[in-house]
Amino acid sequence: MSSELSFDFEVQQRDGRARLGTLQTPHGEVQTPLFMPVGTQGTVKGLSPAEIEEVGSQIILANTYHLMLRPGEQLVAQHGGLQGFSGYPGPFLTDSGGFQVMSLGHLRKISEEGVIFKSHLDGSMIELTPERSIQVQQALGADIIMAFDECPPYPAERDYIRSSLQRTARWLERCLAVKDKDDQALFAIVQGGVHPDLRDESLALTLPFDTPGYAIGGLAVGEPKEEMFPAVAYTAERLPEHKPRYLMGVGHPEDLVAGIALGVDMFDCVYPTRTGRFGYALTDRGRLNLNSSGARTRLEPIDPDCDCVACRTFTQAYIAHLLRAEEMLGPRLLSIHNLRYLHRLVERMREAIAVGTLYDWAMAWGQTYFGSKADGVVPEWFTEALETGRQTPTGTPHH
Amino acid sequence: MSSELSFDFEVQQRDGRARLGTLQTPHGEVQTPLFMPVGTQGTVKGLSPAEIEEVGSQIILANTYHLMLRPGEQLVAQHGGLQGFSGYPGPFLTDSGGFQVMSLGHLRKISEEGVIFKSHLDGSMIELTPERSIQVQQALGADIIMAFDECPPYPAERDYIRSSLQRTARWLERCLAVKDKDDQALFAIVQGGVHPDLRDESLALTLPFDTPGYAIGGLAVGEPKEEMFPAVAYTAERLPEHKPRYLMGVGHPEDLVAGIALGVDMFDCVYPTRTGRFGYALTDRGRLNLNSSGARTRLEPIDPDCDCVACRTFTQAYIAHLLRAEEMLGPRLLSIHNLRYLHRLVERMREAIAVGTLYDWAMAWGQTYFGSKADGVVPEWFTEALETGRQTPTGTPHH
Repeated sequence: MSSELSFDFEVQQRDGRARLGTLQTPHGEVQTPLFMPVGTQGTVKGLSPAEIEEVGSQIILANTYHLMLRPGEQLVAQHGGLQGFSGYPGPFLTDSGGFQVMSLGHLRKISEEGVIFKSHLDGSMIELTPERSIQVQQALGADIIMAFDECPPYPAERDYIRSSLQRTARWLERCLAVKDKDDQALFAIVQGGVHPDLRDESLALTLPFDTPGYAIGGLAVGEPKEEMFPAVAYTAERLPEHKPRYLMGVGHPEDLVAGIALGVDMFDCVYPTRTGRFGYALTDRGRLNLNSSGARTRLEPIDPDCDCVACRTFTQAYIAHLLRAEEMLGPRLLSIHNLRYLHRLVERMREAIAVGTLYDWAMAWGQTYFGSKADGVVPEWFTEALETGRQTPTGTPHH
Repeated sequence: MSSELSFDFEVQQRDGRARLGTLQTPHGEVQTPLFMPVGTQGTVKGLSPAEIEEVGSQIILANTYHLMLRPGEQLVAQHGGLQGFSGYPGPFLTDSGGFQVMSLGHLRKISEEGVIFKSHLDGSMIELTPERSIQVQQALGADIIMAFDECPPYPAERDYIRSSLQRTARWLERCLAVKDKDDQALFAIVQGGVHPDLRDESLALTLPFDTPGYAIGGLAVGEPKEEMFPAVAYTAERLPEHKPRYLMGVGHPEDLVAGIALGVDMFDCVYPTRTGRFGYALTDRGRLNLNSSGARTRLEPIDPDCDCVACRTFTQAYIAHLLRAEEMLGPRLLSIHNLRYLHRLVERMREAIAVGTLYDWAMAWGQTYFGSKADGVVPEWFTEALETGRQTPTGTPHH
């Protein structure tokens, strides 16, 4: 069923469950594992297209919900799609809009047909269905588009999660039935919360569609990491070996390290740019608060080992000054640094996978990273994820 | 008395009163006429240092008042001055702080000694004197520093303007007495409002100090252009031929064209970046409002002849979308475009001066520019400035 042109994924190397891969898309080849910055409204907050390329981003996520409301998908289509609209020439991925409708609290009604929600812009009532989501995503023209799914909140009743994952599978079928463009790859989304048996049911309903990639959905919605990562491990090892695996909405440094160790290939999150706008810088020794009075007199860069323009050019004192003075260059520089930090983190993991030292690298990284926090303890969920990741998968992939 | 090292100005060509010059500063050579973007708090709003260079800026103005209050001149000095602090490696000019104190409305007392004002940040009472202004400007380390002057508002009584210009001359003497760094050039400021006889008096009191450059102060403070440009013409032709002339706080496109025709070499203004943040783009056909509903569907760039990144990469529709969505890339792109527009405008005038066609070029430019406005009429003050500018100066320079 994977008839998409210009779309191909190859796993080139493994280290335990972690993989190095190459993903071919119509707008270029990308190396996995990778982290995707979020360009909600067709722009990654704080960065120009040139800066997106400079920090090492390979593929941008854009939000269907926001763009269908404003400026409308037809205007984006008139620009030849997201690349022409945003000025970023590389690959894009669009979400389905479903998660935004539900998480932004504008949901009015959910039924077998789809969802009805109130626009956060003008209050109008709008319907989003699997068919409409695909239609919008085809107009937006991303390289990878996502199935329209339902993502239950945490906590939710087992029965609700179960009926929801079944509906998600029926919606997947409707998405695939309406999709009629060959230059976009549609990824299915596996649901099931933190329950292994429900993950099994979702996998059994989803994998027969043999989509060119799979997302692990329904996580990072409020559950503790002690529940989230076992669910990631359980699901990832049951996904096909030769398809990319995408853990949606995940992007704290420690989550990328654990997720990649468990065999995840793709991540996205607003975290690096959002925390940057709030004045925080990501480093191997934890998060640095540039709003602190201490930062105002530090004549050294955020991270002397970082190759981003913020660390190559500016002191912490200057960036702290920009934040206090409410100058937009401050949030820009921290957004750039934080994205570069996550990309470098993934690049270092790719290098470790290539030489088969991921477990040792990640354990050492965890010692430094968690060691910088108040209690200085590496959490069990993190060590367990790395231990699980170094083992050969025990589950049986459904295909 | 002009003992400054690494500082030199040469007029290379004339076309009527307009001049092409080269100004040598410790941080590099710049071509005049030129427009200086304003980096009030040590950053040009909306641009990174790399973007400042890319748009063709040659020298940045930074504000003594703002920087002495926050982060304090000592922190800037610890960075090796404004270049090390801001990451922009080229020349800087700092104002004296006097205009900011008076115009921002925080002035509490003005006396022969100096001014006492209330900090807009924490309400504390702070004294600024000629000596303190030079001390701060020396710590900031700009290539060009400005004498501490008093700039009367418009309108003001003749008697007040007269006693004020006399005090400004006494303050100039105190500034020069305390200045003890050879790698900064101190420019004096000629006052006198729109009154030729008071301009004469200020010139007579100021020029004997033979500073390496002169500013025309006290204009662009609310007077009509019909009064402002005759005062510019009168003052400029009485300034020494071999010293740069700086018209402070001026920067609308039509003002640059008229001012350069009248023999002004340097300008500064927050206008291009401020109007850009408000959603307006400068063009030869007037100011384009990207907040308008019409802009939302225009698939062409702001100006197809512009070589800035905004015009090379993005449609008006995309930039209009960014503004509506309150994405910071919108104000950034318009700030970049507007600065590039003013720099290109000056570059085109430099080319016209080089081949002796400035008058014709400026008349044609005015036809297009004012022709795009509601009444479509080229104002008399503009034509008169160009007519005056094409004539040989009639006044006698004091030196």
